[in-house]
Amino acid sequence: MKKVFLSFVLVMIWFTAAWAGDDTPTTISNKEAIDLVQTHANFLWTLVAAGLVFFMQAGFALVEAGFTRAKNSINIMMKNLMDFSMGSIGYWAVGFGLMFGVSKTGWFGTSGFFLSDFSPDGDPWVLAFWMFQVVFAATAATIVSGAMAERTKFIGYLCYSLVLSMFIYPIFGSWAWGSLFNGSGWLEGLGFIDFAGSTVVHSVGGWAALAGTIVLGPRLGKYTKDGEIKPILGHNIPMAALGVFILWIGWFGFNPGSTTTADKSIAMIFVNTNLAAAAGAISAMITSWIKFGKPEVGMSLNGALAGLVAITAGCANVLPGSAIIIGLIAGILVVFSVLFFDKIKVDDPVGAISVHGVNGAWGTLAAGLFNIGGITGKIIGVQLLGIGTCFVWTFITAFILFKLIDYTIGLRVSPEEELEGLDSTEHGGTAYPDFGVSSHGGIDIT
Amino acid sequence: MKKVFLSFVLVMIWFTAAWAGDDTPTTISNKEAIDLVQTHANFLWTLVAAGLVFFMQAGFALVEAGFTRAKNSINIMMKNLMDFSMGSIGYWAVGFGLMFGVSKTGWFGTSGFFLSDFSPDGDPWVLAFWMFQVVFAATAATIVSGAMAERTKFIGYLCYSLVLSMFIYPIFGSWAWGSLFNGSGWLEGLGFIDFAGSTVVHSVGGWAALAGTIVLGPRLGKYTKDGEIKPILGHNIPMAALGVFILWIGWFGFNPGSTTTADKSIAMIFVNTNLAAAAGAISAMITSWIKFGKPEVGMSLNGALAGLVAITAGCANVLPGSAIIIGLIAGILVVFSVLFFDKIKVDDPVGAISVHGVNGAWGTLAAGLFNIGGITGKIIGVQLLGIGTCFVWTFITAFILFKLIDYTIGLRVSPEEELEGLDSTEHGGTAYPDFGVSSHGGIDIT
Amino acid sequence: MKKVFLSFVLVMIWFTAAWAGDDTPTTISNKEAIDLVQTHANFLWTLVAAGLVFFMQAGFALVEAGFTRAKNSINIMMKNLMDFSMGSIGYWAVGFGLMFGVSKTGWFGTSGFFLSDFSPDGDPWVLAFWMFQVVFAATAATIVSGAMAERTKFIGYLCYSLVLSMFIYPIFGSWAWGSLFNGSGWLEGLGFIDFAGSTVVHSVGGWAALAGTIVLGPRLGKYTKDGEIKPILGHNIPMAALGVFILWIGWFGFNPGSTTTADKSIAMIFVNTNLAAAAGAISAMITSWIKFGKPEVGMSLNGALAGLVAITAGCANVLPGSAIIIGLIAGILVVFSVLFFDKIKVDDPVGAISVHGVNGAWGTLAAGLFNIGGITGKIIGVQLLGIGTCFVWTFITAFILFKLIDYTIGLRVSPEEELEGLDSTEHGGTAYPDFGVSSHGGIDIT
Repeated sequence: MKKVFLSFVLVMIWFTAAWAGDDTPTTISNKEAIDLVQTHANFLWTLVAAGLVFFMQAGFALVEAGFTRAKNSINIMMKNLMDFSMGSIGYWAVGFGLMFGVSKTGWFGTSGFFLSDFSPDGDPWVLAFWMFQVVFAATAATIVSGAMAERTKFIGYLCYSLVLSMFIYPIFGSWAWGSLFNGSGWLEGLGFIDFAGSTVVHSVGGWAALAGTIVLGPRLGKYTKDGEIKPILGHNIPMAALGVFILWIGWFGFNPGSTTTADKSIAMIFVNTNLAAAAGAISAMITSWIKFGKPEVGMSLNGALAGLVAITAGCANVLPGSAIIIGLIAGILVVFSVLFFDKIKVDDPVGAISVHGVNGAWGTLAAGLFNIGGITGKIIGVQLLGIGTCFVWTFITAFILFKLIDYTIGLRVSPEEELEGLDSTEHGGTAYPDFGVSSHGGIDIT
Repeated sequence: MKKVFLSFVLVMIWFTAAWAGDDTPTTISNKEAIDLVQTHANFLWTLVAAGLVFFMQAGFALVEAGFTRAKNSINIMMKNLMDFSMGSIGYWAVGFGLMFGVSKTGWFGTSGFFLSDFSPDGDPWVLAFWMFQVVFAATAATIVSGAMAERTKFIGYLCYSLVLSMFIYPIFGSWAWGSLFNGSGWLEGLGFIDFAGSTVVHSVGGWAALAGTIVLGPRLGKYTKDGEIKPILGHNIPMAALGVFILWIGWFGFNPGSTTTADKSIAMIFVNTNLAAAAGAISAMITSWIKFGKPEVGMSLNGALAGLVAITAGCANVLPGSAIIIGLIAGILVVFSVLFFDKIKVDDPVGAISVHGVNGAWGTLAAGLFNIGGITGKIIGVQLLGIGTCFVWTFITAFILFKLIDYTIGLRVSPEEELEGLDSTEHGGTAYPDFGVSSHGGIDIT
Repeated sequence: MKKVFLSFVLVMIWFTAAWAGDDTPTTISNKEAIDLVQTHANFLWTLVAAGLVFFMQAGFALVEAGFTRAKNSINIMMKNLMDFSMGSIGYWAVGFGLMFGVSKTGWFGTSGFFLSDFSPDGDPWVLAFWMFQVVFAATAATIVSGAMAERTKFIGYLCYSLVLSMFIYPIFGSWAWGSLFNGSGWLEGLGFIDFAGSTVVHSVGGWAALAGTIVLGPRLGKYTKDGEIKPILGHNIPMAALGVFILWIGWFGFNPGSTTTADKSIAMIFVNTNLAAAAGAISAMITSWIKFGKPEVGMSLNGALAGLVAITAGCANVLPGSAIIIGLIAGILVVFSVLFFDKIKVDDPVGAISVHGVNGAWGTLAAGLFNIGGITGKIIGVQLLGIGTCFVWTFITAFILFKLIDYTIGLRVSPEEELEGLDSTEHGGTAYPDFGVSSHGGIDIT
């Protein structure tokens, strides 16, 4: 008993010391003390949520590797590891300042580069906020990896990834979210609703993926000269499914974490996020069942992701019943969108354009259509303006970027390298040396 | 420095605004403000814990797929994705209302369907609570998936899964836990101890699995006419092990999250949960070592799960030393139980009946036997009543349900489909197209 | 509306009851109430962080299995499951008391065994703190598993693992961290900086791994008589990559959780942890690119881990810019260290000695070199003393332990068993029965 008491006293002393060291040399009022505890909870929630969003990197890596061939698995892991790693450094150096620095014009920030807004004696909130934002920037970048899988030069991908995290994503982001240090970006000033980034994160990733896929062209053997579309199957479906489960839990950081405040509002965001994902998985499964005669696993998994992307904009301002409708439509939309892009020979191995680009747009529109506070023509107009602006800005800048890379260091590997697989040619390795790995697809074309 | 200050001021203004918007237009007393911060912490913990429990879906999917054959992997992923997705919608529409709605009789609730107890102006606690409960409902449903693996029709499984989440689980749950809106369920009123659901969640899942497995019959080739038991090996043991690690961390949401309050009591629950799991893994390993001559991986992994299931009822009312004893017994029990069910030709590919049914019962009894507050005849009697009631209710309703499905849309695939594998016949896919997959088992019987 | 109000009232009553039951029979002052809410947040953060650190067990298991051959996968899963399970029980019984019990001499504690410092009426902080510490002890133990993979007797590994968790790790830990119940350990008293355990956890694991690897000798066929070094490839690179992502997120518990307090200081620790990992991955990739001509996946993944290990000591007392430099150097160091140990024929299949031992030392030195408060000769001297003490204590005790195991129950399997693979000979199983698994390495030597 004495020991327990002792430990209690020590903890109290330690806690008091921590508290004192944290903020104040003398006494603080009860009001200030309450605010401080709430602030601590906000730090805790924002950072735990950032951890969950970071975990989405693993989810993306597994989905992309699972849905593509074994011979390119190392390459996909390297791309996902590196877009997060290089993105972290690039967003620290430049991106965060462009997105959240003081902006005189409303078009981009010009302060806070290299986290220079932080000093050891200052308020560390900027660090918590940066941590939450860097995982978002990396999410936008990594979406593109899947669409460009199985044929992109590694060095070319690294260049793209760094530029997106440092410039393309943060500049658009500053228009819609740039409210920490500056007044506000111009889209935000108009009332644009995109709570957690259906447009800011997912459509940016999706439209950059579209640009990249067009510049690259399809994988060898995907579309034959007779106009046939050949299936190129993913090499590990349980891996892809694990990736989707990880993305789903990661979204419980992505959407409710976007409050950056530990308050009651996160409850509805959790519920909406979950219901939209569930609805998307169900409607995509049913759609695939009707269209193909069997409930297809790839479509069902992408349906869950489509629901998650679509609820991201409106998760804080629509009711749970609306979240279900938004998800149901997203699940249908993703199936038809995947078929559409395949038909026009845009070869997106994992469906990233449909999941993130198309459903990012749908979700942003839906955030206006199902707004709890009511729907007005102005709201819908601004939502459409934001969707359109994102497409124009991202597609054009990304297209130019990919073309530049293509003309300089090269964006696509040689046909020989593509047939052999990027694991061997780009990284000198093999992902599964103990297994007999064969490879399908790409064999009837030089 | 000015910028840091500015950012600090902005955060404070924003926080104050968030706070004000949250609750009050004018001022609140310090006492109210303190309660509000604690409430925020409760929301945060309940929802983060719900996220962890959600992650258990991934754990179950990996354990089940890992412990079964490669040719059924897509099917298992689809079942796990869909029982959560359909369960989410079904529990939103009906299940939650039956379980926690106002109950005049003590037998089931009759309000709160479609989350109608929530309005945007009201307290969002019902949403946080729903989020935590929906992942429990889905856990009960998904337990059955493994026991019925490798031979169940997909459409039949979907029907079962929806009915369990909407009716069987919530009605029993209302007897033991239905205390949010109604007075209390009848079992709860008697003093039944099942803190986080050894009986309410795990035994319900386990006994439904028993009913399903009996109605289905064993997999082809599992039991020969000579009375031999043929091993049908799991196709990916590291995948199953990853699943167990994920379930273990998920249980750190499942058990301590059941406080739905961020207070000091969660510490003992964490410790008990961890010690019981560790003890279960060790004792199952030793038991398998003695019985089979080698420390067996499947038994050891199931031993950890058995310990987790067994501590679930009593995690908040037994001491850490007791948790170790409960886990040790669970680990031994699961080995003998798996052997017993195999002997009586109940073919449970992953051991779900032994892990969740048998150890759910053991854990519920143990919550009485090791009760910190002391043990009385009445306590043990009520625990046994709860265990027995759960078996009778679940086994009978699930048996009828599975028979109904069997006679109408069909519960089991044809022998040809079973031999070919459900991935191909039910979903038109193949989980590992780049690998040379063979299949063992089921070959010497038509 | 009435129902919502009712639910709100019930929650409030329940919360008040929980609060009252928690601490006080009568009223508490606002000051005490505020402290209590903060204490609840501290419990919550410490326990959630412990959960994240637990998840690192899965990460280690995947990294180790992925980087070794398919025929030893079950063995690696069993080792990881069991070092955590046995470590949990051993740390409960003995380790925690040695590390944090009351110490009269400053050399080890002599109280708190079997968690006897806790009583149901006492403060449960000791349980929260134990939970956080047990996952650290298990981390130290599990590091060794990878370095000794593919040739160690299972029973011998279990003995080692238990002794490390019960004695070797906690005794060193008490010197550097033993401050909960006793005054302080002697290293801590000198001012040794190792915030989250670059030395206490990682170097202890790394130097024990070095001792074990030396006692064991290299795998068959790794080093030929002609002095050639044969590559023995990992069997599943995406699995290893997933492991690294899981370790990365686990480190968001490991480092910031080491505050055991929910305050603002965790923000900088999160940011530093992330930036060092990113920098380590990048610099290791570039180093491998320069040295081998291609960006190598194993080195890049180990680079991220090296950055994480290196920032662990100084994560709370260096600036983000310094964290990047620390990570960059760690990533370069790990590549050269792996090559060095291979050259001197210390066969470490996963690079654990380089990642945890060498970079643990580097990180501990760096915590002095980049100290926010300034660098003095005394600081550097104490850091070097701590690094050296850890090496001497751990290497010598672990070496003696491994030799003792070797002379008694045996540490290494027979060459026949090694060639066949430990899954079959030690556990009577096979990890991938549905796949055609071949095995490379170890074939040209008896």
